Amino acid sequence: MDLHTSPLLTDLYQLNMLQAYLDHGMTETAVFEFFARKLPPRRGFLVAAGLEQAVDFLRGFRFAEDELEWLAASGRFRANLVDYLAGLTFTGDLHAVPEGTVLFADEPLFRVTAPMPLAQLVETRLINIVHLQSLIAAKAARMVLAAEGRTLIDFGLRRAHGGEAGLYAARAAYLAGFAGTATVMAEPRFGIPIFGTMAHSFVQAHDDETDAFEHFARSRPDAVVLLIDTYDTETGARKAVALARRLAADGIQVKGVRIDSGDLAAHARTVRRILDDAGLDEVNVFASGGIDEDLIRRFVADDVPIGGFGVGTSLATSEDAPALDCAYKLQEYAGIARRKRSEGKATWPGRKQVYRTYAADGRMTGDVLTVEDDDRDGEALVRPVLVAGDAVAPLPSLEESRAHAANQLARLPEPLRRLDTAPPYPVEVAPALRTLADDLDRRMAAE
Amino acid sequence: MDLHTSPLLTDLYQLNMLQAYLDHGMTETAVFEFFARKLPPRRGFLVAAGLEQAVDFLRGFRFAEDELEWLAASGRFRANLVDYLAGLTFTGDLHAVPEGTVLFADEPLFRVTAPMPLAQLVETRLINIVHLQSLIAAKAARMVLAAEGRTLIDFGLRRAHGGEAGLYAARAAYLAGFAGTATVMAEPRFGIPIFGTMAHSFVQAHDDETDAFEHFARSRPDAVVLLIDTYDTETGARKAVALARRLAADGIQVKGVRIDSGDLAAHARTVRRILDDAGLDEVNVFASGGIDEDLIRRFVADDVPIGGFGVGTSLATSEDAPALDCAYKLQEYAGIARRKRSEGKATWPGRKQVYRTYAADGRMTGDVLTVEDDDRDGEALVRPVLVAGDAVAPLPSLEESRAHAANQLARLPEPLRRLDTAPPYPVEVAPALRTLADDLDRRMAAE
Repeated sequence: MDLHTSPLLTDLYQLNMLQAYLDHGMTETAVFEFFARKLPPRRGFLVAAGLEQAVDFLRGFRFAEDELEWLAASGRFRANLVDYLAGLTFTGDLHAVPEGTVLFADEPLFRVTAPMPLAQLVETRLINIVHLQSLIAAKAARMVLAAEGRTLIDFGLRRAHGGEAGLYAARAAYLAGFAGTATVMAEPRFGIPIFGTMAHSFVQAHDDETDAFEHFARSRPDAVVLLIDTYDTETGARKAVALARRLAADGIQVKGVRIDSGDLAAHARTVRRILDDAGLDEVNVFASGGIDEDLIRRFVADDVPIGGFGVGTSLATSEDAPALDCAYKLQEYAGIARRKRSEGKATWPGRKQVYRTYAADGRMTGDVLTVEDDDRDGEALVRPVLVAGDAVAPLPSLEESRAHAANQLARLPEPLRRLDTAPPYPVEVAPALRTLADDLDRRMAAE
Repeated sequence: MDLHTSPLLTDLYQLNMLQAYLDHGMTETAVFEFFARKLPPRRGFLVAAGLEQAVDFLRGFRFAEDELEWLAASGRFRANLVDYLAGLTFTGDLHAVPEGTVLFADEPLFRVTAPMPLAQLVETRLINIVHLQSLIAAKAARMVLAAEGRTLIDFGLRRAHGGEAGLYAARAAYLAGFAGTATVMAEPRFGIPIFGTMAHSFVQAHDDETDAFEHFARSRPDAVVLLIDTYDTETGARKAVALARRLAADGIQVKGVRIDSGDLAAHARTVRRILDDAGLDEVNVFASGGIDEDLIRRFVADDVPIGGFGVGTSLATSEDAPALDCAYKLQEYAGIARRKRSEGKATWPGRKQVYRTYAADGRMTGDVLTVEDDDRDGEALVRPVLVAGDAVAPLPSLEESRAHAANQLARLPEPLRRLDTAPPYPVEVAPALRTLADDLDRRMAAE
């Protein structure tokens, strides 16, 4: 049972419901949409991400022999369920907002249209995939906006929540505008640029700090970033300067020095001065350790001479908001719109579309959330991706999605670009959608 | 390249350092220890978890042909690196604290003793595996203590950070005392009990709520927990009561009702009264939606009649503290103790042991952190797991580790069991360890 592709990576209630749907012939078309109910407190926008992995999951969706045997032997289900699952593939439709698109609360990130048992069965893993990447992409975008062009590298694998989280966080961060990641597998898997310096252990293992720097430089001459804070940052910087001159004679260039502890701003200023005094203007000061968008913004505002940041935990776990309040909700079954009305959790019914309008200067002015067949001005964000299980067109490449994300971030209203949450971005619920919801409420009240 | 087992799921700096170590013959024995530098603000203790997966990773550690080819073709490394990695397996030692053991800041969770390049290379993924499960186990343990015997089920897969995080969170939660999980794969993979009710979509897809309940009950007669809050909780409860009587005639028992929205405490009281008035004392009220240990504790203190909780996001993302400030630090190289002295990040050097003492009533009284060969009273927590790559004994089963965790939680000092963070648990640094650190500082100052 492969952890990534197995349909058993799901909630048991999906299989329980499936049994009931099959027993009672409820296999008509269901429409589910995935959206955020509201944004986390300090977040002004989301960034759609993970669609490619969601499509991979759907296109590879099938039960393996050992999984069917496990279901049959578990004692929970009848033969009709195992028979139904035996040949099942994803034959439904998928609509989605392109990766890299900025999105807001209530706006559907994707829509699944498929026979009810199938649409229900793919829920858990689809949320699991898209929630994670969209969460991290939104966090990364905040850092990209705060950094105002400074280099950002993902250092988060070790504290990401498992291997998949680490790899997908690298992807989501790159999509949102990071320059790359430390995670090696991101290059062979996704073509993402990878970066690596050295650990404190490398310096500690040598009896002499300069020896450590020189060993590293001679073994990896095209990637010389020296970690100078293992013992004393200023001393480390002076050793780096002396070594840089010797290495230059052999054609090896020190690209940067990294600081990972203490008062990063104060150290960066001191180290920058030491480098500048030695004429090493082209050697970058790189900072890591406890970096988040607030710190980046502060350093940028204070003109701290840091050229790049390695960002780990705060990025890879989306530390200030490690989850979105999101849902995959039934919008329609057997041709009739549906609506959940639980207290505080009521949702807009039906198949929806989002129209986005822009000002003459290219900035976003507002969105309209409406029913799919409403005709509104603006750019329609929700687009067909799979029809009857087949791709309508190749998905954009990661580079294309990254360019799209950059374009979207550039077009955000200025307060959102400054990471302000007020005023909120205007999302209008169209009359057509309100009418559908009211009609539905009346019909259900009459029953 | 398998996401879970590939040695390329690592940081590039490991490979950069490896190149330098090989080029300069630095392949002597290194000793690394993994520990938390400090606990998150509201956490009084950790719970060691994930050792089994760490051992699986180490015992399966090898580079596949395509990974070696990628390394050779990447243009970053020399042939000596690819040659070294070609036949590499984990031939080192692993010491660790048993899974389920309660642990505190600075205490090593595990220790790796291996040739430097190998010990360095396994760092990232070992942290990635053990950090996640220990983080979630500690969070889950808080809920277990708060629940005072009420049933807890993990509902977190959809908002966990990827598939591995979801599956491992289920394992860590069960280890810490949860009754089980909704994640299906946790049963075939780990033998963890799985539970599942129904979604709101199931109720919405039916025109009549009672029909939905009855369809479910007849299709899954041994798992009848009815979700009663899709429209109106009180009405839903009355429908459940009426149905329960009819089903009883056919030998089907309604085990519980689930509430997932609104004022859970108020609804639970109303629903409990409706059930009791109907003589359905044995039908449990089960709550989900935004549950965390604070809410559980409040409900328990207020005698809210909730028999069980489904806990999702707060558990699976460790929402209040989604990462531990932890490190895998070099403690010794080539027989000489090492110490990082970066500002605010200095660590205790050498191979360490933790001795735990207990009072006559079985409660923990304090730990002593010392060097490995110090002889102290108490229970030694750090034990050999792998020697020269081979297991010294079979690992405990998950059930055994779970029993150990329950025993550890029972023996915590009372304030920690109440989730208080003050007074902190006493961890004494032994004179032998202070002496080693001082000697090391003197030696390095003299250089």
